[in-house]
Parts: sequence; C-alpha cells; structure tokens
Amino acid sequence: MGNCMGNRDVCDRLKNTNVRWRLPAVCFVWQLSMIILFGVFVRYNEESDTHWVDYRKGNNITSDIENDFYFRYPSFQDVHVMIFVGFGFLMTFLKRYSFGAVGFNFLIAAFGIQWALLMQGWFHSLDYTDGKIKIGVENLINADFCVAGCLIAYGAVLGKVSPVQLLVMTLFGITLFAVEEYIILNVLHAKDAGGSMVIHTFGAYYGLSISWVLYRPNLDKSKHLNGSVYHSDVFAMIGTLFLWMFWPSFNSAIADHGDGQHRAAINTYLALASTVLTTVAISSLFEKTGKLDMVHIQNSTLAGGVAVGTAAEFMLSPYGSLIVGFFCGIISTMGYIHFSPFLEEKLKIQDTCGIHNLHAMPGVIGGIVGAIAATAATNTVYGDLGLENTFDFTGPFAKRVPTIQGGYQAAGLCVALCFAIGGGIFVGLVLKLPIWGDPADENCFDDEIYWEVPEDEESVPPIVAYNNHMIPNKHADMRETNFVEQ
Amino acid sequence: MGNCMGNRDVCDRLKNTNVRWRLPAVCFVWQLSMIILFGVFVRYNEESDTHWVDYRKGNNITSDIENDFYFRYPSFQDVHVMIFVGFGFLMTFLKRYSFGAVGFNFLIAAFGIQWALLMQGWFHSLDYTDGKIKIGVENLINADFCVAGCLIAYGAVLGKVSPVQLLVMTLFGITLFAVEEYIILNVLHAKDAGGSMVIHTFGAYYGLSISWVLYRPNLDKSKHLNGSVYHSDVFAMIGTLFLWMFWPSFNSAIADHGDGQHRAAINTYLALASTVLTTVAISSLFEKTGKLDMVHIQNSTLAGGVAVGTAAEFMLSPYGSLIVGFFCGIISTMGYIHFSPFLEEKLKIQDTCGIHNLHAMPGVIGGIVGAIAATAATNTVYGDLGLENTFDFTGPFAKRVPTIQGGYQAAGLCVALCFAIGGGIFVGLVLKLPIWGDPADENCFDDEIYWEVPEDEESVPPIVAYNNHMIPNKHADMRETNFVEQ
Amino acid sequence: MGNCMGNRDVCDRLKNTNVRWRLPAVCFVWQLSMIILFGVFVRYNEESDTHWVDYRKGNNITSDIENDFYFRYPSFQDVHVMIFVGFGFLMTFLKRYSFGAVGFNFLIAAFGIQWALLMQGWFHSLDYTDGKIKIGVENLINADFCVAGCLIAYGAVLGKVSPVQLLVMTLFGITLFAVEEYIILNVLHAKDAGGSMVIHTFGAYYGLSISWVLYRPNLDKSKHLNGSVYHSDVFAMIGTLFLWMFWPSFNSAIADHGDGQHRAAINTYLALASTVLTTVAISSLFEKTGKLDMVHIQNSTLAGGVAVGTAAEFMLSPYGSLIVGFFCGIISTMGYIHFSPFLEEKLKIQDTCGIHNLHAMPGVIGGIVGAIAATAATNTVYGDLGLENTFDFTGPFAKRVPTIQGGYQAAGLCVALCFAIGGGIFVGLVLKLPIWGDPADENCFDDEIYWEVPEDEESVPPIVAYNNHMIPNKHADMRETNFVEQ
Repeated sequence: MGNCMGNRDVCDRLKNTNVRWRLPAVCFVWQLSMIILFGVFVRYNEESDTHWVDYRKGNNITSDIENDFYFRYPSFQDVHVMIFVGFGFLMTFLKRYSFGAVGFNFLIAAFGIQWALLMQGWFHSLDYTDGKIKIGVENLINADFCVAGCLIAYGAVLGKVSPVQLLVMTLFGITLFAVEEYIILNVLHAKDAGGSMVIHTFGAYYGLSISWVLYRPNLDKSKHLNGSVYHSDVFAMIGTLFLWMFWPSFNSAIADHGDGQHRAAINTYLALASTVLTTVAISSLFEKTGKLDMVHIQNSTLAGGVAVGTAAEFMLSPYGSLIVGFFCGIISTMGYIHFSPFLEEKLKIQDTCGIHNLHAMPGVIGGIVGAIAATAATNTVYGDLGLENTFDFTGPFAKRVPTIQGGYQAAGLCVALCFAIGGGIFVGLVLKLPIWGDPADENCFDDEIYWEVPEDEESVPPIVAYNNHMIPNKHADMRETNFVEQ
Repeated sequence: MGNCMGNRDVCDRLKNTNVRWRLPAVCFVWQLSMIILFGVFVRYNEESDTHWVDYRKGNNITSDIENDFYFRYPSFQDVHVMIFVGFGFLMTFLKRYSFGAVGFNFLIAAFGIQWALLMQGWFHSLDYTDGKIKIGVENLINADFCVAGCLIAYGAVLGKVSPVQLLVMTLFGITLFAVEEYIILNVLHAKDAGGSMVIHTFGAYYGLSISWVLYRPNLDKSKHLNGSVYHSDVFAMIGTLFLWMFWPSFNSAIADHGDGQHRAAINTYLALASTVLTTVAISSLFEKTGKLDMVHIQNSTLAGGVAVGTAAEFMLSPYGSLIVGFFCGIISTMGYIHFSPFLEEKLKIQDTCGIHNLHAMPGVIGGIVGAIAATAATNTVYGDLGLENTFDFTGPFAKRVPTIQGGYQAAGLCVALCFAIGGGIFVGLVLKLPIWGDPADENCFDDEIYWEVPEDEESVPPIVAYNNHMIPNKHADMRETNFVEQ
Repeated sequence: MGNCMGNRDVCDRLKNTNVRWRLPAVCFVWQLSMIILFGVFVRYNEESDTHWVDYRKGNNITSDIENDFYFRYPSFQDVHVMIFVGFGFLMTFLKRYSFGAVGFNFLIAAFGIQWALLMQGWFHSLDYTDGKIKIGVENLINADFCVAGCLIAYGAVLGKVSPVQLLVMTLFGITLFAVEEYIILNVLHAKDAGGSMVIHTFGAYYGLSISWVLYRPNLDKSKHLNGSVYHSDVFAMIGTLFLWMFWPSFNSAIADHGDGQHRAAINTYLALASTVLTTVAISSLFEKTGKLDMVHIQNSTLAGGVAVGTAAEFMLSPYGSLIVGFFCGIISTMGYIHFSPFLEEKLKIQDTCGIHNLHAMPGVIGGIVGAIAATAATNTVYGDLGLENTFDFTGPFAKRVPTIQGGYQAAGLCVALCFAIGGGIFVGLVLKLPIWGDPADENCFDDEIYWEVPEDEESVPPIVAYNNHMIPNKHADMRETNFVEQ
C-alpha cells in the first residue's frame, strides 16, 4: 500500500521501475557466465576430491577427521547463517521493506558467492600446474566473507536502489574486494582473520561512497516509510542475534587450526558481551526519559565483533577484548545519535541502516587495534613458535618482526579505505546512469515497487464507515458478510 | 476469527472437528507403544555406549575425536533445524494457519522420528547377535530424513486435514519410507546421500497422491484464507533461509567421512546459489511489471538442493552443480506459474505449498542426474580407490561397474515413485474415512478449528463507529477508556 | 501505546520508571569492574594460548583436531543460540513486551556471561601456580549455562521489573549459582551434565521466590496486556523450537568426550520427542472442544529436555529417556492448566511464563531421575572402565559406589533448592527497595515504559470516523491524503 495508492499512474510516470527485462537478463547472463567460468576454472581441491583417500595414505594422515572439513565446517555454517539470516533480517526493520531486505540480500549473496569463488580463487587458490582453482570448505567461507562486504554496503542504500543496481554493485564490489584482499593479505602480509579492514572497513566505505554519489535531496518524500513498526523491529532482532551469536565463528572461521580458532572465538565472545552493556548505557543516557532505542540495540551491540576482527587471532588477552568492546559500544551508539544526522545533513550521505556506526568506525578501530596488537607482540607472550605461527613469519616473511608487522597492518587499513572510497565513487557513478530502474524519491523504502505484496488485512487503513458501507479495500465483501446485521 | 464468526453453530454443524478424544488417544497410545517397542528393541551402539572406552582401546582408535559423533553431530543439528524450523516456518505463509504450520509440523516430526528409529532400525541397524537395534548419531540423522518425507507430504495437504489425519499419514509414511529406502539403498545398492529419490520424490508424490484422493471440489469456500499477509510471508522466509543455508549439511550429513561429506557440501552450496538467480529471473519475467513473487522466492530457490541430492557425493564437479541448480530454478518457478493451476484444474490435485514444484520435479531430476553421473563415473576422474569408496563397490557388489550402477540408480527412482503413488492412494483412502475430524471446506486454512487463537487486536476487523459506540469486539471497553473525551 | 496514552502524566506520577541515570550507571560501573577483574584474573588456557603449539608437541598430541575446541565448539554455538534466541524469543509471546523479552534477555545474558566466567573461574578454573583463571571453550559453555539459570528466573518476573532490577537479579543469581554449583559438583561430586538441578531447579525456584516477594496484588490492572496476539505467538515458537532442537547440545555440551557426549545427545533427543506427544494429548484433552493451546506447545514440549538433564550422560537407555519425556509432558501441561492458577491465587506467586511448569517441576524430576539412575548403575551395564569414567570415580572419590553416588545426587538436589529459595527471598527483598524504577501495576507487560516504541500503524486503535475526520493518531495526515475524495 505505497503512498500513491489509487494513483499508481502518477507514480509510474515519475520513474520507470519496471525491471521485467533488465532483471531476468542480468540474472540469466551472469549465471550462464558463472557456469562457463566454473567449467573452465573450478575443480575440487585435494580434500574434497575422491583422491583424498590416496592423498591421506600418501601423507600419513591417520584419520578422515583431519580433513579440513571438520576443522571449519561448523564455523562455515554459522557464517552462512550470518550472511543470509543475519544480514537479511537485520535489515527488515523498515515497516514496508522486509521483502526487499531479506529477498535482495538473498539474491545478491547468492550471486556474490559464485563470483567471489572465482575472483578469490584466481588470487589465492590457483593451482599453477593445471591453471585450475581448487576449492574446499575454506573457499566457501571466504566467498561468504567477500559477500559480507557487499551486504554491508547494501545497508547504506537499502530501499533506494533497484535489484539490478544491487547486482551491479555486487559485481564490482566483489571484484574490488578480491584485489584489495590480495594486496592486504598477500602483498603486505597483514593479518585480518575477522576482516575488520578487509571486510568491514572496505564494505562500509564502499557503500557510503556509493550512497554519497546517489544522494537524493528529496528523500523526505518517502519519510513516512523510513521507520519501523513494532513487529518489524522484532524481526530485525532475529538478524541482530544471529549475527551477535555467530560472530565468534565469523572471526575464527579461517583462523589457524587449534589455538588460533579457539582464541579468536573467545576474544570475540568477550568483546561482544562488553559492547552490549555500553550500548545500553549510552542509548538510555541520551534519551530524556532513559528509554532504550531499538535501533541501537539492533546495531551497536555488534560493533565489538567488528572491532575485534583483525586482532581476534592475536594474544589480545580477555580483558583487551572487553576494552575494545567497551569503547565500540559507546562510539557506535553515539554515532547513531550524533554522527548519522551530521553525515546526512552536512556530508550528504544517506545511510539507511547506519553502517557508518556499525561497520565503518568499528572497522577502522579494528584495523588500528590490530596494528597496535601486532606491534606489541613479544616472544615472551606468544612463545617463539607461537609468534611465528600466529603471524606466519615464514618463507619470504621469515625475517619480519612484530614492530614491522604493525606498520604493514596500518598500511593494510589504508589500502582498504582507498579501494572502498575510490571504488565506491566509481560504482556510484555507474549506478547513476538512468537505466537501472531505481525508484523515485516518493517510492523509496516500499516493497510495492519490486514485489507482489499481498493484500494485507493488517495494513489496510482502518477508515471504514459502518452506516454507508464505504470500505476502501478488497476485503469489503468479506467483512460485510461477517458484520451485516449487527 | 474464522469466517463463521458469530455463527459458530453453523460451522460446527458442517463437520465435527472436535478432536478432543481422538487426538489425545492417538498420542497416548502411540507414545506408549513407542516406549514398549524401544524397551524391547533399542539400545545404544558401540560409539554411544559406555563400552566405547573399551572398544576404542581394543580397536587402536587413538582419540575420542574419531567417534562418529564428531563427524556428524554438527550436520545433524543443521538437519534438525531444517526439519523443525525450516519445514515448520516455510509453511507459515498462510495468513491464518501459522499455528497449524509450525505446531502440527512439530507434532508429526516428534512422533515420526521415534517411529523412524524403529522402522529404519529393523532394516538397517539390527544387531543379529542379540536382536537389538543399536543407535548412534547416524540413526538420528536418518530418522530426521525419514520424517522429512512426511513433512514434504504435509505441504500438499496443509490446512485441509486434521492433526489426527496427519499422524496417520505420518505413521504410514514412515513405514513406506523405510521399506522403499531399504529396497533402493540395500537391495538395489543405489546411492542417494541427499535423498532426491528416497526423500523428495517419495515424499512429494506420497503427499500429492493423498491430496488427489482427498480432493475438495468446494475448497473455494476457504479461498479468502488461502493466501499470505505481509508478515506471514516474512515468517515463511525464516523457513526458506534455514532450509537453504543448511541444505549442504542435509546432503552431506550421511555421506562418507572425509572427502564425501566435503564434496557433498560444496556441490549443494553451488547448486543452491545458482537456483536463486534463475528463480528470480523467471519470477520477474512472467509478471507484467517485472515484480517478484514471494511464493517463488520462498520455494523455488530451494529446488537446486533437492535436485543435487543424489549426486551430491559424486564427482559432479562444481560447474555440474551450477548447471543442475540453473535448470531447477527455471523448472520449479515455471511450475508455480503454469503447472500448479493445471494440476489443480485438470488433475484435481490441490497442492497448498506447491510441493510438486519444490520437491517432486526436482526430486525426479535429482534421481536422473544421479543415474547419469553414476554411469559417467570413470577411474580417471575418481581414482581406483575413490571409485570403490564412493559407490561402495565392495562385498556382494564388488564387481559392479559405473554403467550398471547407473541402471540401478534409475531403478531406484522408479521404486520411489511406485511406493509413493501406491502408498499415497491407499493412505488417502484411509484418510477419507469420516472419523478423523477433518475441517469442512469452509474452514480450511483456519487455525480457529484446532487451536485456541488469541483475541488479536491486529486482526480485529476495523469496523468501529465513533459516535454510536458500536464496537464489535472484546477490547471495546479498553478502547473506550482510552479515547473517551477526545 | 500504553494504557495511559494522552495521560502520561498520571502514569509518571504513579511510579517513577525513569531509569536514565540508574541504568547507564549500573552498566558502566559493572562493565568497568569486569574489565578490571578480567585484567587481574583471566587468561587463556593452554588450548587457546599460542603456547598450544609447544604443549601439543610436548604431550604427543598428534593433531590440532584434538584441541578441546573441536570437541565442544559446535555444541557451544548451539547453547549460545538457546541462550539468546531461545530464551529471548520464547518470552516474546506477550502482545506488547517483545522488545523487553528479547532486549533485556540480551542485556542480562551479556552481563551474566562475564560475571559467570569470573565466579565459575574462581571455583573451577583457577590455576594455583599463578592465581589466574584460565579459560577455554568449556568455560564459555559453563558461563552460558550459568546465565541460563538467571534467564529462567527472568521468566517468572517478565514484564514486572525494570532492567536495573534484572541486572541486580543477575548479579546475585550468578553468584549464588557458582557457589551452589561448586558444592553440588565438586564437594558432593554429584553429576549434572545437563543441569536439571544446578541450572533448572535453581533458576526456577530462584525466580519464583523473587516473584513471591515481589507479589503484586493489583496486577489485574495490566491484565489486558498479559496475553498474546497471533504473531507474538509465532515469534515465541522461534524460541521454543531453537530451545527444543538444540537441547541435545545443551545436555551434551560439557559431557565426557566420546560416548558421553554421544549418549547425552541421544537421550535428550528421545526425551524431547516423547514430551511433544503427551503435551499435545493433555492440551487437547483439557479443552472442551479439543483445541490446542499455544502456551502448552511453546513451553511444555521442552520439559523432557529439562528432566533428562542430570541423567543424560548416564546409561538411561533409549526407552528410559522416552519414559522421562512421557511423564514430563503430562506433568508440565497439567501444571499450566491446574497448578499455575493455584500458585497465583493461593501461594501468591505470579509466574508470567509458567517457569514452575517448564523448569521447576521437571528440574526436580530430573534430579530424582538422576539419583535413581546413579543408584541403579552396575558394572554389567556400564563396564568397569565405563562406570569409572561416567561417574568419575577417581582421585578422592575412587572408592565411591553407585548406591552412595545416588545419595549424593539427591543431596545435590536439596542444595539447589536451598540456595534457590533462600537466595531468591533475599534478592527479592533487595529488589523491593523503591529505588530500581520498576513499573506501576498499571504499566506491567508494556514496552512503552522502557523502550522507544515506534508509532505502529497496526496497533493504532481503529477508532476512526470518516465524516468528521477525527483521527486520533499521528498518521492522520497521511491517511487523509490517501483517502480524501473517495
């Protein structure tokens, strides 16, 4: 029941949001391209191939349980839930954009993971003996991670773009992600287990830059839909909680086997717990009567997980994690209260979900915390072997020391920022072309534009007169049947 | 607030839907029978018995981590979520049948897993030395699988049957399932890790056959309830996403340790991703203005997981999985658009959830893909050991070759179809007996019949006159209190 | 839209529910204390520390997969979901207290896990060589368990207390829990893998005692909000199902490696299945027309999991588990029908969620079942090694025999009850102080008091007159725009 009910013609004239040919064409062509590229490039790796039986015997591996699958699959499934239910439902808070939130999140993630397997595969998993990308469970996790960057970016433009624009944004986003990730992790040899820099900083500034280019001065026209209703806030909490609960899996999913994964999970668990308390404190403190705001609870409680991402694998120590969470809860909630209005009014960045507060600032903090933690690493704390293992000071990087590593970590953060902002502006300009079927200012945040929305008894405006039977909706006859003769 | 509000007497005269004695009697007697049968037959297997400590030592197993529990428990829990939340919430899309969807799904699954442990136990896990069924985590997974067949069948008759009928349907369904499974997997020695044939083809045609026998020519009388509202569609997406995300666990849960589980998860992940894009494409293409239909997104996006079930464990190769998903998204969505109306009008099969499109067609495709993939298996691709392991060409089947295996796979598909259709017609006739308390045509898709439904402010028809205080609901006094004197 | 709409002044005079300084102060101070205490006391244990690499080599551990992380992390994540989504959503059934249910559950759990790590750490994980608490994944699980006790207690006072009271209740609850747990598990050496006594009995009677002290004779004034609406009941089913599905992980999470965890999962799976059927039976039997009541389905179906907690690890045998579930489904549902009204009217205990039926009675039954199962344990059934391992008859307890163990199990139950009731009364008295900002009797069960609640189209009372445009809410202008000129 958009705001041009009974007046759809006017709306349609405002902007052509019919994506009937564009959306199917993009989906078909891109999916066919995926099939062809996978046919040419992608194969199972040695742990997912039937030759594993031989490989195991050849390498004195005593049990199938040492297949990487068993180290990482539980975490993979948790990450998978975060991507599809976590991000999807977190964005259902808008009163009439739940289909778009969950549905488009689903669409772009499903496309993104395929393209990510290719892009990341070329950079990280290419077997030079036969030119094939060899995939296993770790690639699936990394593909999910890569998509996370694009879903974060979606949060900034939620409700203001068409599904075709989202797909284009994802195509470029994944591409940029794979390159910056390669530079940060492989060239600079920075560590970023939970992706504070690679995923969150990149994804958030990518989305914010796009939103800046796509600035809509008249977005006020959809203001009445840019908010929540009671049940949509409860739906959003499903997203929040699954993100919050599974974040320890996110940060530990591709950490080192053994203590690496173990420690990353503990650090994340603690940082997140701490964030919840400071989020509640700030939310209550800045409201006249001390009431809590659902927007903060839904979002800022997650900031600690973002900020502890880079350092999750390090010997951050339990209290270190709590401190990171403590400050991020404060900063993120303050961001919603003070910084978001500034961002919109002064910098002309419209950020529907407030990703600047949830991902951008905590992501940058995470990068800095990682740099400091790396710089401060000592043999005493890590042990000789532990230090070497944690930072992979092997091969060409055998001579690197923690202080130098700290510098490279900081450099990694800069790379993420450059790719995000530069890439975002470029993609924003591409998305500004008047060919993508984006909604008019009057139709933002409205599922009606891209979805068949059911006639909804609940949302039927309750203007009904008893005596003269003026019932402005299709259920009229049913209701009359029920209530006639009362 | 059913459609005989204020006129409940008429409704009650239509059909006796009072299940007060029938439902408790069935629950009690069957549960008692379960206890007795479990007492006689079911024991822990060597990995869940305290004698595991001795067994481990006696068999040179170096670590507790090699207990099958650690290979399969994470997948088991994912499958468990699919059964109870996935199937349950997928069916909440109807505006006034969410209690029935989630609640009856819960009831029949809870009964079904017990009966399945017995039925499958007698066929697969009977220890002939003492006549006991020995159970472990793999049995729990298989029981969940077995129940999945019945829950699929529930989708066809959703809203049109009583809980007693559902329990009867489950009792027979599990029984038939266990027999067809034994014939397919053990006698024919066909492989079906993800159950395209055993679970999906069987479950879907079983349910469709029952629905055909129970055809209701006057179902139109409940037409106004046979649809969704905005929030019920969002609830259904919870089901969709948990099914979609955990399907890799479903298809890999009982696959071979090591590369088998690893590969099955990858193949399923890819097939499902591909399906999403073609589902969106077709959904948009066949609607005049290119809008998406939630019914397709909720259901057809899952078709790839069904269709890749049988071959998930095989060397289908990543692009092979994408191709399977590609076509299933198209076929399934086209099914909703074109085939479902045909099924209802011409074949007189009323299929509430469209299981023909989600499970039946993709299941058959999955069986065929499996047969082709088996036929095409070569020593070059699989390796000698790998081929033997994947297809279990050992013992009495040591001499079987891939081409022969392909034939047996195809035979398996036929067995599934025969059991489903034959069994379904028989059970449908049983359910036609006028003793099960099923709803009248006027009361289908209505929770009011079998549930205490709360007085719901939201659903209260908004016929309220201000001046003369004619407020046809119980909250009247409360409202008057609030608004008097405005 | 509380019941003092347009009359907020009156409400505010009734009771000061402004928590603006109290809530932030408690959150900040307590979180800072946590950071300091963690800084002084908490460190990684040998399996989550970088020294694991050395430890592994020094202890001939052949693979990283033997790190406890891989034994317990999947179960940990399931438990984590139960704590935050399970308990949180189970309590969303009230029509206007979903924010409080999910949000305060989130807050107190996030605080509780930190305090639990310290309290339990001092008792169980203190390394006497350096005075530090060494934590790993098992500590995280135990912290979640500890919090579960407080969340159960929350169920009794849901909607009637302020967030500050909840935090105080959690502070004391965790403290009492850690002490009673130490006495039961370490001093008495009772076994309680799933916490029937330690978690459920304690948590439930703790909450009921508090509720008894905080008895509100005029709670009727909020009666209209003390019930569900259609969608809130569906939300609550999310909580129910995640609790139900993951309960096998709950009861097996800290059980012995290998067969212990395996068996605990099987027993719980079976007990829960059985409970569902008897819950449905009783629910239907006691309603005139045989309809089912959502309250029973949401809660009583879980009683089997509670009651099988203590004995889950024992050789209870599959049919034994079914029997436990069978009776608990009956008792719990009967409790809702007959005992809850008695509790409120005669004993003056107001129990919002009916935790007496879901946790208290089944918890006590679980303790008794555990005592009987321990007493009945024999070498024949368990094997010599198995008996020793299951009951840890080693070290100072090497000479204990099953019959004696049974006595200590029973003693453990008494300890849990004493701590719960004694502690609950004390904490109740503390919470009676008029400084915590609790709601007036008129404002219970209402999110308006502590949350910014969105203007909700759906909940807008449908008092709208067409002709004279008297529309008592803020959406008036929007509606007029839409419907003018009809």
